[in-house]
Amino acid sequence: MPPFGLLHMRAWASLFGQLLRPRRAVFIREVRVHSQGTRDLSPQQMVVREKILDMVIGCFKRHGAKRIDTPAFELKETLTEKYGEDSGLIYDLKDQGGELLSLRYDLTVPFARYLAMNKVKKMKRYHVGKVWRRESPTIVQGRYREFCQCDFDIAGQFDPMIPDAECLKIMCEILSGLELGDFIIKVNDRRILDGMFAVCGVPESKFHAICSSIDKLDKTSWKDVRHEMVVKKGLAPEVADRIGDYVQCHGGVSLIEQMFQDPRLCQNKQAREGLGDLKLLFEYLTLFGIAEKISFDLSLARGLDYYTGVIYEAVLLQTPAQAEESSNVGSVAAGGRYDGLVGMFDPKGYKVPCVGLSIGVERIFSIVEQRMKTFGQKIRTTETQVFVATPQKNFLHERLKLIAELWDAGIKAELLYKNNPKLLTQLHYCEDMGIPLVVIIGEQEMKEGIIKLRLVASREEVAIKRENLVAEIQKRLSES
Amino acid sequence: MPPFGLLHMRAWASLFGQLLRPRRAVFIREVRVHSQGTRDLSPQQMVVREKILDMVIGCFKRHGAKRIDTPAFELKETLTEKYGEDSGLIYDLKDQGGELLSLRYDLTVPFARYLAMNKVKKMKRYHVGKVWRRESPTIVQGRYREFCQCDFDIAGQFDPMIPDAECLKIMCEILSGLELGDFIIKVNDRRILDGMFAVCGVPESKFHAICSSIDKLDKTSWKDVRHEMVVKKGLAPEVADRIGDYVQCHGGVSLIEQMFQDPRLCQNKQAREGLGDLKLLFEYLTLFGIAEKISFDLSLARGLDYYTGVIYEAVLLQTPAQAEESSNVGSVAAGGRYDGLVGMFDPKGYKVPCVGLSIGVERIFSIVEQRMKTFGQKIRTTETQVFVATPQKNFLHERLKLIAELWDAGIKAELLYKNNPKLLTQLHYCEDMGIPLVVIIGEQEMKEGIIKLRLVASREEVAIKRENLVAEIQKRLSES
Repeated sequence: MPPFGLLHMRAWASLFGQLLRPRRAVFIREVRVHSQGTRDLSPQQMVVREKILDMVIGCFKRHGAKRIDTPAFELKETLTEKYGEDSGLIYDLKDQGGELLSLRYDLTVPFARYLAMNKVKKMKRYHVGKVWRRESPTIVQGRYREFCQCDFDIAGQFDPMIPDAECLKIMCEILSGLELGDFIIKVNDRRILDGMFAVCGVPESKFHAICSSIDKLDKTSWKDVRHEMVVKKGLAPEVADRIGDYVQCHGGVSLIEQMFQDPRLCQNKQAREGLGDLKLLFEYLTLFGIAEKISFDLSLARGLDYYTGVIYEAVLLQTPAQAEESSNVGSVAAGGRYDGLVGMFDPKGYKVPCVGLSIGVERIFSIVEQRMKTFGQKIRTTETQVFVATPQKNFLHERLKLIAELWDAGIKAELLYKNNPKLLTQLHYCEDMGIPLVVIIGEQEMKEGIIKLRLVASREEVAIKRENLVAEIQKRLSES
Repeated sequence: MPPFGLLHMRAWASLFGQLLRPRRAVFIREVRVHSQGTRDLSPQQMVVREKILDMVIGCFKRHGAKRIDTPAFELKETLTEKYGEDSGLIYDLKDQGGELLSLRYDLTVPFARYLAMNKVKKMKRYHVGKVWRRESPTIVQGRYREFCQCDFDIAGQFDPMIPDAECLKIMCEILSGLELGDFIIKVNDRRILDGMFAVCGVPESKFHAICSSIDKLDKTSWKDVRHEMVVKKGLAPEVADRIGDYVQCHGGVSLIEQMFQDPRLCQNKQAREGLGDLKLLFEYLTLFGIAEKISFDLSLARGLDYYTGVIYEAVLLQTPAQAEESSNVGSVAAGGRYDGLVGMFDPKGYKVPCVGLSIGVERIFSIVEQRMKTFGQKIRTTETQVFVATPQKNFLHERLKLIAELWDAGIKAELLYKNNPKLLTQLHYCEDMGIPLVVIIGEQEMKEGIIKLRLVASREEVAIKRENLVAEIQKRLSES
């Protein structure tokens, strides 16, 4: 059993369909990383990406989402004061006259700006696009300065927790569909966090700083986080210990009930609201059949400033062997509720409540690429169905006429751009590229009004009447 | 007959498939243009774009192309001295430490850089992506500072004119497939232009300047172009007149023959080579069945510096009525041969000959959007197949259970995010959004173990056994 034992060969074969039947080893091949922290994507990588994106977008469409697009750059002011400490990672454009511009940092802020600018009060949309961040590239973990985001969001005033539950359902459908292995979605609520800080005695001015310490608990031990809070951020040790009692809790509905009974926490109005909503959320998650995938986790904090309610983050569960072999794969999807962001862009402060999620497709791409490498999985990078060949010299004209006929019939076809290619070279090309059918024309065939059709896999050759060629090819392709 | 009489309703209906059957008027709706010369794309625009891009990409795949991607920004030095006078339109990134970067201006230069950097000697690739140019936006003609390009290129050393002919075949397939109306592809060769300038007596130092004057002949009269060449660019009047004799010529193979006989032109080696290649090209175009779409046009110059051989540009032919109503639609696809560009990026100057084309998809999008507006054509922006409704209060739990069952079966389904929506509101939503099927559950149905399925178009309702629901829906969807 290979180290990444979670991938079922058959499932992947069905996901990748006929693309996975080449004859030559065309493994995932990464092209060179650029000094500026970006990279090109090879045809092999593009095939993997397109298959995964198709599945993600298919799920978004299944839930009735529309697609929009926004420009790569926004006014600089649109992006300021939205990302907390990470604002330093924003790429600015040079001032060449006109407004100051910055490359977008995520797809959420442009979406909120879109809603406010176009006075849209209600919308279920998805958006797939590139974003840019000036991070120090840690290429091993598949982090680059340009990467793709896939977002789904529901904007509008609705009855509580129904859209939020649908977002979690979508995350489950996508992660199950991609067969990345077992996963869990941690859920918390910003109001519970704030309530918890308040009842533990954290001064309000330190909420943000303590929140970002808590955010490190998925990578760092409680001991180290406690040390940071007390020594670096000046929290009283007994306050830290009170927080510690909470953030080490995670569980299901019963934990919500337990927190409701907690004598300190239940005195805080915000915490009570958050707990009430989470309870309702779990009711809906049970009806959706996904409650066992969700864990109420008081240590989940999420870095971004704009969240106001429920927050969530999906992580892959690794077997001990995997955990040893690979670095922390971390979150593969995340999101939450942000009811105040749109109002920041509306001249009158009109609010549109929003909840949404982002699929960590770059991490998923690199996991899948890694697994395909491990399995020596091969990838076809073209979809060519038929190759037009000849064993004879001076047959270019016939080949060109014939291939135009195939193209005009919608058949995916190629030939070699040579006047007089050798037959063996042509047949090798087909085997290399995984092209299933070869049409062979020569003088003898011309005389007899036939054409030879070669099946590359079996090397079998059949004679077909020239006028039946297109119909015969279409029949064979539809059968395969 | 509406002014854009070239669009066949039935053909478009088949192109857009079932997306064109909504009940509510959702016409193309443009969202607000930004002060920075960019714009958001609405769901309606995205649907049109995706359908057109699918068709373009389908054609690229039919010709055996692989897809690659490159980053939005390149090293600034990669883009310098590639675009002639247009270099001033390049967007630079702010110097925030590290290399100086610029947003890509087209997809051709990044492709050449990709080939050189990865030492690829042979590749047939397509690339769909955004590019950025700091042009003064002329929004009426659909020009923005961010726009999409669709490129197909063949790199490698091959026998002459076979890949070049395939590029022209691809342009014909795409323009015919999109049914934009009649079109013509103008063809010329940079070597013929240079030869023509030489034999007319243009000093070599003025080749580029005169070339860009010639480039204006599609928008400006010969008289004005002649004036510019003589008065502004200091060309002797008799030299200008000699050029005038040539650039007003266009035709088919017979014009090539005529130019071969031209006593001055045939003395120039470069011109003879260009004419020889064009003759061969027409031979292949005839075999491809597209020769009547191609016009040898001595006035075609193309602006970019990097072309070295055959160049081409497709323009839509307008009826006089259209020409009066609309501004010049200009070129909808263009390209040519650039044998020297890859060598500029190789440390040893190793050359990889290339030929390619770019589809002017932004212009095509705006033509199609304009036509759909003219025809009052409606567009569905979601693909939802089934809506889950109830006539009763307190049925949210049942609705949630049911919709999860549909989603898990791969059915595209929606419900209203309300605890107790009115039945009429729910049914109106379906009619508005063009959702074909409604599943209705209530107490009576629960008791009888059935469910009602409503066909929105006919308002017919049928009772179905609860356990057969998914199968019945799948059957009806596959039939429609």
